[in-house]
Amino acid sequence: MVPKFLRTIAGSGNGRHTFPIRVYFEDTDFTGLVYHANFLRFIERARTEMLRELGFHQGAIHAGESGDALFFVVARMQLEFLKPARMDDLLTVETRPLKITAATIELEQIVRRATEILFTAKVLIAALADGKPRRLPREIREKLALGAAPHKS
Amino acid sequence: MVPKFLRTIAGSGNGRHTFPIRVYFEDTDFTGLVYHANFLRFIERARTEMLRELGFHQGAIHAGESGDALFFVVARMQLEFLKPARMDDLLTVETRPLKITAATIELEQIVRRATEILFTAKVLIAALADGKPRRLPREIREKLALGAAPHKS
Amino acid sequence: MVPKFLRTIAGSGNGRHTFPIRVYFEDTDFTGLVYHANFLRFIERARTEMLRELGFHQGAIHAGESGDALFFVVARMQLEFLKPARMDDLLTVETRPLKITAATIELEQIVRRATEILFTAKVLIAALADGKPRRLPREIREKLALGAAPHKS
Amino acid sequence: MVPKFLRTIAGSGNGRHTFPIRVYFEDTDFTGLVYHANFLRFIERARTEMLRELGFHQGAIHAGESGDALFFVVARMQLEFLKPARMDDLLTVETRPLKITAATIELEQIVRRATEILFTAKVLIAALADGKPRRLPREIREKLALGAAPHKS
Repeated sequence: MVPKFLRTIAGSGNGRHTFPIRVYFEDTDFTGLVYHANFLRFIERARTEMLRELGFHQGAIHAGESGDALFFVVARMQLEFLKPARMDDLLTVETRPLKITAATIELEQIVRRATEILFTAKVLIAALADGKPRRLPREIREKLALGAAPHKS
Repeated sequence: MVPKFLRTIAGSGNGRHTFPIRVYFEDTDFTGLVYHANFLRFIERARTEMLRELGFHQGAIHAGESGDALFFVVARMQLEFLKPARMDDLLTVETRPLKITAATIELEQIVRRATEILFTAKVLIAALADGKPRRLPREIREKLALGAAPHKS
Repeated sequence: MVPKFLRTIAGSGNGRHTFPIRVYFEDTDFTGLVYHANFLRFIERARTEMLRELGFHQGAIHAGESGDALFFVVARMQLEFLKPARMDDLLTVETRPLKITAATIELEQIVRRATEILFTAKVLIAALADGKPRRLPREIREKLALGAAPHKS
Repeated sequence: MVPKFLRTIAGSGNGRHTFPIRVYFEDTDFTGLVYHANFLRFIERARTEMLRELGFHQGAIHAGESGDALFFVVARMQLEFLKPARMDDLLTVETRPLKITAATIELEQIVRRATEILFTAKVLIAALADGKPRRLPREIREKLALGAAPHKS
């Protein structure tokens, strides 16, 4: 499903976006740790904020306010759960683009507690309209490719 | 917000709907107990199943397949959290209509583990279309008023 | 279940705590609106942050780091769902103590989008240790009674 | 993190476990589809039920009722989101062991709607006790290796 001709972002090391997450009751389970699926909620919030900082509001994009109704879907993920997180932890999600093609974005997302890496994900995002694959808006691709996010870390 | 002239269901004692819920990891929190807000997910599933058994599929109703797009919203709730539930518990949600008006349904919902009552709710449901209050379909009101659900307990 | 002799907080109008919530994908449902039970997650985060600002970290309290293992549970709620919230909305949760007794705290919590009130809750919190009701730590009661939170609105 | 000497299950094709999932409001998001992270909740429920059918109740295992406190954690996942699921859909999770080692279980989990494949996962599970890797109980390994689940499909 990964397109053949992928354009690697030069200097993607500069394009990191970071977003803080606090762990609440709702995120934990009876083992005392964060429930594994909730890491996906955390990194989805970070992607939403990264897009927002680039000027893309997904509620509005989906509603078609900036042209056609469009939304981004997760097509593929590789996840490593390395260490547990716990109630009250303050985590950081770091997101950086790995590859951008006409219709997909591949991101790396890392969740840390201070310097400790708890979780890593490679996430392939595709754009859909009317349930069909769709070219990503050029503006999104260009901004992401530039090493996009305003927060640098 | 509760309409003035409420029609009490005669024989609502017969119209109980019961629905089983298994407690999974996702439902618990780090205290070892079911996270309180998840009781609302449990009783919402039971309402969805009660409507389904009456012939109303909310996905389809919302999509406007049976006329106009319509959906049910929770307008008000009174909740009592009496005893905790835990991982692996098998619970039962009992739902019965208390009052039905042109635009609202008031339900009582009780969550039990065997005979023990863990949680009770009074739930006021309203129907909306285009964001505005809307008469409930007559068929739903009549079926609920009859002591609706196929499972009797 | 509400204790008989309740002490009303003088000047509770001053003791408001406010906390911002951003609405993400995970919070919405297929009707396009925030799923009703998620308002309970939002206001629970606000309670956790209010306690944290008063110096009480629930993960640590539960682990018994400051004495006995203790945790707070929701005993009762009255909820009004007045207007819907949507993807990307920036909400504010305002929390203020209504009544504090030896073993319970009654709070009012209001969720707003700008000045618009979307949701209100009265929440009765009890303290438990070993599954039994337990006096609240004096320090928590005193700080809450003083009109507690550092953020004033 | 995958142990070097992996024992492939002979005849794992026979050891499929199937579990039904109904899609409710709580599972969907504002795009009208099931929120991607909720597929992880669905397949976790199926793993819990597969273990239950083999005689292992995770609440009890975690509480140390059958010896030492032990729990299973997800260490790694590869996920493919192929087609969307929607409100009211009735899905099936099929789970089968791929490889079993002293301390890990690798599973394949497939979510279908009728015959259509919506989602596939490879899931690496590890056992922990006191936060450290731990040999899986022999009984679990043997039952899984036999082509474990009572439901055959």
